[in-house]
Amino acid sequence: MTYTVQIKVMPLKELLDPQGKAVIGGLQNLGLSGVEDVRVGKNITLQVDADSPEAAADIAEEATKKLLCNAVMEYYEITVN
Amino acid sequence: MTYTVQIKVMPLKELLDPQGKAVIGGLQNLGLSGVEDVRVGKNITLQVDADSPEAAADIAEEATKKLLCNAVMEYYEITVN
Repeated sequence: MTYTVQIKVMPLKELLDPQGKAVIGGLQNLGLSGVEDVRVGKNITLQVDADSPEAAADIAEEATKKLLCNAVMEYYEITVN
Repeated sequence: MTYTVQIKVMPLKELLDPQGKAVIGGLQNLGLSGVEDVRVGKNITLQVDADSPEAAADIAEEATKKLLCNAVMEYYEITVN
């Protein structure tokens, strides 16, 4: 069966996020107030062919560790639908 | 009160996603099988100061339409925590 797996990859909370800082600056230039902090990361949607949701999550986790997430700078969350 | 708003910005389903195609190629080179399709988008986390979750969602939607999402190529989903 094919499972849809969502992988959220975000910069670690301890690190600066220059892209997020640029977004805050852009929002202020547009006159939009109320936004205090912005973090920008990646969202990756996989279609995984596997026998069970657990197997799909395992495949997605391996893909994330080997290719999609740099653990030095980023953390990830995996959800299977 | 400060609300955490998640914005998911993904390439439209009708469009090609070269970054996703590159990820599929990379996974195959790594010998990881089972992944049939990959779409890569952005995940943006905002800390919004607002009176209610609805007001926070409105601010996030305005920010998304004006700055974060290119409606010609992308769609978005907003969730408030």
